[in-house]
Amino acid sequence: MNAAEAARLLAEHGRLVEAELEALLGWLEGPQSLAAERRLVAAMRHATLGGGKRLRPFLVRAAAALGPAEPAAVLRVGAAIELVHAYSLVHDDLPAMDDSPTRRGRPSCHVAFDEATAILAGDALQALAFEALARTDWPADAEQRAELVAGLARAAGARGMCGGQALDLAAEGAGLDEAGIGRLQALKTGALLAFACEAGARLAGLAGEALAAVLAFGRGLGLAFQIKDDLLDATGSASLLGKPTGADAARGKATFLRLFGEAGARARLEAVRAEASGVLDKLGPEALLLRATLDLVVERQS
Amino acid sequence: MNAAEAARLLAEHGRLVEAELEALLGWLEGPQSLAAERRLVAAMRHATLGGGKRLRPFLVRAAAALGPAEPAAVLRVGAAIELVHAYSLVHDDLPAMDDSPTRRGRPSCHVAFDEATAILAGDALQALAFEALARTDWPADAEQRAELVAGLARAAGARGMCGGQALDLAAEGAGLDEAGIGRLQALKTGALLAFACEAGARLAGLAGEALAAVLAFGRGLGLAFQIKDDLLDATGSASLLGKPTGADAARGKATFLRLFGEAGARARLEAVRAEASGVLDKLGPEALLLRATLDLVVERQS
Repeated sequence: MNAAEAARLLAEHGRLVEAELEALLGWLEGPQSLAAERRLVAAMRHATLGGGKRLRPFLVRAAAALGPAEPAAVLRVGAAIELVHAYSLVHDDLPAMDDSPTRRGRPSCHVAFDEATAILAGDALQALAFEALARTDWPADAEQRAELVAGLARAAGARGMCGGQALDLAAEGAGLDEAGIGRLQALKTGALLAFACEAGARLAGLAGEALAAVLAFGRGLGLAFQIKDDLLDATGSASLLGKPTGADAARGKATFLRLFGEAGARARLEAVRAEASGVLDKLGPEALLLRATLDLVVERQS
Repeated sequence: MNAAEAARLLAEHGRLVEAELEALLGWLEGPQSLAAERRLVAAMRHATLGGGKRLRPFLVRAAAALGPAEPAAVLRVGAAIELVHAYSLVHDDLPAMDDSPTRRGRPSCHVAFDEATAILAGDALQALAFEALARTDWPADAEQRAELVAGLARAAGARGMCGGQALDLAAEGAGLDEAGIGRLQALKTGALLAFACEAGARLAGLAGEALAAVLAFGRGLGLAFQIKDDLLDATGSASLLGKPTGADAARGKATFLRLFGEAGARARLEAVRAEASGVLDKLGPEALLLRATLDLVVERQS
């Protein structure tokens, strides 16, 4: 599979994810809803729909291709992870956090609505993610639903995404060494990306060594994603990215680029890619979609 | 059971809840944690421990007394609900929301730490609540764990607490009629209080009409709680409450007091109490703890 074919599959899956997200957000609208409730849901829709590559849901799908998995389950789990990702962007963009006025080329949620609504929209998106996983209206048994809730909660919380964002905020201007930046990124973006891989593998019925290999791949992909993100922030195109570039350097953020320089970061990216790719060799030919996703992550321009 | 005995049981159960919350927060501390992660957990502890009556966990217990329920399950579910309650207070106190400098007689989380940390602490507390329910380390089968996750997520999200807070913020200065204020409160505080009753009843094995009666009681108790809250804000003691009084009127908040006046609100509170108490008659003598809790809610001075 070449990168162009993978990009086509990513776009195709993205449309299915969009429809699933629409359906989940549709749970929130009732005939009794008052104007302020509808506005909250509108803010949640603004933050969730009509943008984003849907990389995390695609990782669920790519890992799920390692075994037999229900397509409806793959979509539901991918959408739940995407809801957590969307909420985290809303809160990260707040004035007290990264203070970003735009996101995906559109006004950030707190700019399009207001700060209080953005805080609540993020909170309610997180709740919706867990409701989506826990409800009985998708093909998974209760054991699997509860296991996915626990895994997503761990990846999203203080030992995952929230802990990473706390490190990121504290690291502005402060010197973190390679281990510190590695931990920051493993938590902030890596935990959710790795969980997407793990969840897909679980839906495919993987266990033991095969599951462990997918987890190791997920951690490597997360690291590659972040190094590429740092490179794009320094050298990418603001119009392709849909957000201003150079923001990390301006804020003195702890990045791999700052630690290794551009050439060093590129070399590190290739090393991480090679290692993650090597892990896939253990998983056989069904791993071709995961391999193509890794290529997409490393070669993306936005 | 008289009110003094119920107050003693509430305090006794509160100590068990405190220990359970300590245990859940203990999951977050690892040897690899860096300073900023430990600070995030410290903010979560500040927001969660050492304060609060633990009314919601006690409601779980009181409803669970309607049938055979595992004490460890009652504690786990109560603590999970309390984590959601604690996160909501942290976010409600933020400058962009109610802008409250104190909570339970101590500095609010964003004052004791900072705004970004308070946002993240609330986010991570919500994730921890769902992890606590979904994990396998407490006595409930997977079906029950998933069902409780779905119920808590619904009560906490846009159709519950977050929707109610959105109504509350929008209603400042605006005129809401009785139905509007009723919906606001049913979502903002009622949904979580009613879910605490429902969850306890489910742990006790209730179903059908008995479960429906507990749900109706929970909605009534939630309404009584809110009318009492409005009365305390207007006429209570700031030192007992641990927060400034008169804040609702100063902000032009939509309250039952504003709609009915003090005497009218007191009359409404008694009517709601009588109706909720009547519902309990259907549930037999095991409902005595729920009845005592209703008395506590209506007669509390803080």
